[in-house]
Amino acid sequence: MNPTACLLVIGNEVLSGRTQDAHIHFLAARLGRIGIPLREARVIPDVAEIIVSTVNEVRARFDHVFTTGGIGPTHDDITSESIAAAFGVPWEPHPEAWARMERHYKPGDFNPARQRMATMPRGATLIDNPISVAPGFSIGNVHVMAGVPRIMQAMFEALAPRLQGGPPIISATVHAAGVQEGAIAEGLADIQQRHPQLDLGSYPYYRPGDRGVAIVAKGTDPVEAEAAIGEVAALFRALGAMPVAGDPA
Amino acid sequence: MNPTACLLVIGNEVLSGRTQDAHIHFLAARLGRIGIPLREARVIPDVAEIIVSTVNEVRARFDHVFTTGGIGPTHDDITSESIAAAFGVPWEPHPEAWARMERHYKPGDFNPARQRMATMPRGATLIDNPISVAPGFSIGNVHVMAGVPRIMQAMFEALAPRLQGGPPIISATVHAAGVQEGAIAEGLADIQQRHPQLDLGSYPYYRPGDRGVAIVAKGTDPVEAEAAIGEVAALFRALGAMPVAGDPA
Repeated sequence: MNPTACLLVIGNEVLSGRTQDAHIHFLAARLGRIGIPLREARVIPDVAEIIVSTVNEVRARFDHVFTTGGIGPTHDDITSESIAAAFGVPWEPHPEAWARMERHYKPGDFNPARQRMATMPRGATLIDNPISVAPGFSIGNVHVMAGVPRIMQAMFEALAPRLQGGPPIISATVHAAGVQEGAIAEGLADIQQRHPQLDLGSYPYYRPGDRGVAIVAKGTDPVEAEAAIGEVAALFRALGAMPVAGDPA
Repeated sequence: MNPTACLLVIGNEVLSGRTQDAHIHFLAARLGRIGIPLREARVIPDVAEIIVSTVNEVRARFDHVFTTGGIGPTHDDITSESIAAAFGVPWEPHPEAWARMERHYKPGDFNPARQRMATMPRGATLIDNPISVAPGFSIGNVHVMAGVPRIMQAMFEALAPRLQGGPPIISATVHAAGVQEGAIAEGLADIQQRHPQLDLGSYPYYRPGDRGVAIVAKGTDPVEAEAAIGEVAALFRALGAMPVAGDPA
């Protein structure tokens, strides 16, 4: 069995429509490759009680919880202290984070707002930030990362070697033009039943002059995924359509 | 007080990283404009028990719940029957939906898989689908829409006139190059305290040769939002930076 992951995107900017979230897509793909499939993602606001209750709910349900956002220096950055509250531990200066940031800033610039970025739940393990110094951290099974996508992604790469994944989630895909989902649904359900270990998804596509459907088999066994996709190709052919491996270009 | 909204994006394809979600961003912006701010969004898999328990949790907590995905004809499309289970009502042919789809398909093509798309929780009110016929539906405060973004957006526009919003959520923005969040954090917290009705967000931006920070004031009172942004501009000037209205280009 693969360990599971949940992502909490913390930030009003996604819920207000100001920002298009980029974290879900990045982490979904990246976690699949290291065999820790993402099972749920939530976007929640910068509200302490909501962060605390959500973190406590999902850290009990999933093997890993990743958070993004809310660890900067401003008044709306309350993720770190909320995580401390969720774990019931003190929120206090982290000596190594403090030392890194003190070295980074000019004398006098390491002000109280920035000192908050070096203040963490007791027991936190740092996640390096090769881009802008201020580290993220892990506590228990919760991994706390920045909200700026470039920084989050660098933090994830720093963290990844510490994560123990299962077999990578792989996929096989076939598509056919001119096929409608409703025409293959019954045959597809039969194939899914014959391969209960796989997750068979059906994705219609609509482009000018090119409509059809792509079928994706996901799982940890590449041989079984290819076998199921072969059965889907036969289903397409039985309808007089031409199966083509992979996604439509 | 504005009514609140929660979005459930239902679909393995977002959690596997196959698809970049487009619903959160669209609905966040669109719901803000009609005064029903989005307070939470979740991406959950095509698993009946998870859909049922999540719908029941969030329909009690929010004024409106919007779902996307899982109402097509294939085996992994289980949103509609799961919503019926969540409400404890029968899942049965909806006469008007059935009639629309029967008219649309050639004789013989309205097969059992497609008939599932005309099967709905008892008491559902249709949401028109001007693109591909098969309707969405509302039941109680839950609005069930398609997963293909173009179809979801058309359904939302068909639904919107039935939704009773509050005052629109508006925003005012100012940015300044060369300013770091850590330098303005304290002053910004003071401004937030003076305007507790507003939500003041701080968003650093990093571009080649252009770094700075944008401050956004959100709320329902445009005069107060502009006043707060004026105070932020003064804060920028006090640091020797040049405030510019709006977001960086």
